[in-house]
Amino acid sequence: MKVCIIGGSGHYQYVLDGLAGAQVSLVGYAPGVADEKLEKLESALKAAGVEAPRFARWQDMLDELRPDIVVVNTWFGACAAISMECLRRGHHVYAEKPLATTLDDLHALRAVYLEGLGAQLGAMFGLRYVPAMYSAWRFVRAGGIGAVRMVGAQKSYRLGRREVFYHTRDSYGGTIPWVGAHAVDWVRWFAGAEFERVTALHSTQGNRGQGEVEVTAACLFAMAGGVIGHVNLDYLRPDSQRRHDDDRVRVVGTEGVLEVRDGQVTMWREGAAEAVQLQLESPPQCFADFVAGLRGQGCLVSAEDAFAVTEASLLARQAADAGGTASFSSQRLGD
Amino acid sequence: MKVCIIGGSGHYQYVLDGLAGAQVSLVGYAPGVADEKLEKLESALKAAGVEAPRFARWQDMLDELRPDIVVVNTWFGACAAISMECLRRGHHVYAEKPLATTLDDLHALRAVYLEGLGAQLGAMFGLRYVPAMYSAWRFVRAGGIGAVRMVGAQKSYRLGRREVFYHTRDSYGGTIPWVGAHAVDWVRWFAGAEFERVTALHSTQGNRGQGEVEVTAACLFAMAGGVIGHVNLDYLRPDSQRRHDDDRVRVVGTEGVLEVRDGQVTMWREGAAEAVQLQLESPPQCFADFVAGLRGQGCLVSAEDAFAVTEASLLARQAADAGGTASFSSQRLGD
Repeated sequence: MKVCIIGGSGHYQYVLDGLAGAQVSLVGYAPGVADEKLEKLESALKAAGVEAPRFARWQDMLDELRPDIVVVNTWFGACAAISMECLRRGHHVYAEKPLATTLDDLHALRAVYLEGLGAQLGAMFGLRYVPAMYSAWRFVRAGGIGAVRMVGAQKSYRLGRREVFYHTRDSYGGTIPWVGAHAVDWVRWFAGAEFERVTALHSTQGNRGQGEVEVTAACLFAMAGGVIGHVNLDYLRPDSQRRHDDDRVRVVGTEGVLEVRDGQVTMWREGAAEAVQLQLESPPQCFADFVAGLRGQGCLVSAEDAFAVTEASLLARQAADAGGTASFSSQRLGD
Repeated sequence: MKVCIIGGSGHYQYVLDGLAGAQVSLVGYAPGVADEKLEKLESALKAAGVEAPRFARWQDMLDELRPDIVVVNTWFGACAAISMECLRRGHHVYAEKPLATTLDDLHALRAVYLEGLGAQLGAMFGLRYVPAMYSAWRFVRAGGIGAVRMVGAQKSYRLGRREVFYHTRDSYGGTIPWVGAHAVDWVRWFAGAEFERVTALHSTQGNRGQGEVEVTAACLFAMAGGVIGHVNLDYLRPDSQRRHDDDRVRVVGTEGVLEVRDGQVTMWREGAAEAVQLQLESPPQCFADFVAGLRGQGCLVSAEDAFAVTEASLLARQAADAGGTASFSSQRLGD
């Protein structure tokens, strides 16, 4: 299988790390938008020992190389339109999350996907494939803490100086969709339940002159069966900290509580007097898992997952902009 | 100063622990409602070496003993009416939190308090006086992590078998006011900002046949200055766990992040590469601090704090019942 990359602004590293395991070849790359910088991508290609031609226009690359898979990770606001064109041309797409940065784009992308002739769509929810998250999820979904009643997820990142395209909503999409989508995904994935309503808040205060980048946010999700989801996000982890992130998930079940934090899984289980650690399992590699899915071997992230989480993130952003609650029932993507 | 206790269903232990330090005497006790059990209170009195008469009716006790301070901690739904009567009689009141379990009761209590002739009102926000919380708060309010932008608080408790009066909303008041009030208080106290709007969710599912007791809840608070507050509560910490609670507070500031957890304060500060621990200070004892306040020496919890936090907790419960958002602006207690 031949792979092309469009853009160098997202998590292309997932793809480079998975090429060998997936037994696929990277055959070309191109910017997704005219002003996009590709230096980091090119350094990463070199470090990975990959030689592939650069194209000035991604359309020309697709015309010439006819890849099986196109990786879309350009400026976030431009991803949906490119993914649509790739699907229309019949290429499988492995896209940055969120799949779109507006609900209109998301609905259009979904229509194209559903009308397509078998081209598959995957999304870079690579944080499902972290050993602690993967192991915790397997344990929870196997009933290890009874029925799930509440899931909380945290993303805390260093802000640093972000590329200028982050500074406007049009190109960036907002912190709830960009950073929060992972947490929103964890909530739904661990709960095994769909979203019904969301309320959210966000604020740009404290972003050190970086335009429209929200640096704090929180979301509250009403989910099917009375399950509660809550998410808190911040970009205020000090830049001086060695580790970039402080990601966490806490799951409250009828027979115990489980928490993922610092790469470990801690459990407070019925019958035990103290917390215990869960033995970690080895997850598949995320891009290799997507390719395995194309080959009919199943995949941890479905296109439906990516659509649902993108929709939830965009509705949460909308709620936060309005300072109110957004309901999923009235705007749910149709099936 | 003479102290009487009405009821044995709350945190009377705060009072017993503070008698000596406050240099006050417990002179009598009585049930607050007819069916209230006082065995635990009586055991605690014995353990504390306190001898004081039991009265069948609290009104008779007040008539006869004319105490300076009345401690009100009966069934939660009955506290407000008793506190009102005590204030009307000119006794200082040290009341269980929340101050009331309905907004009507809260408004009536506040009117009585404001019309009073100097009788003071304190509330049992004893969890401000835990060394880690107290030390963290002092550090944050002194600017140790810059401007506070987001505060998250968690209460996680073992459920066990609760007394029957917990099983109905009328006598219990609900989990957001009862358990959550502490977390709501921490959010406001650490933020140093007032609440503007709240959305909340709660659920009784998983309460093992204990009537109307909600065992999961989460609240999202919009606060002045765009500060975000979020709270998550659960009663699903397994009964087998040795420790009763897993209380946490996490504060995100413009110059660092701080977390209270497991009796420690961890900070991620600008300029440091790793997390560091805050040296803990010794807080005052909570009831002794209330008495010091009566003597003009200042107190960590004001009556206004107790009114604001009770109002916020009841509005959050109302929002959770309705599945929507409650605004503080329209219902704010008047000044």
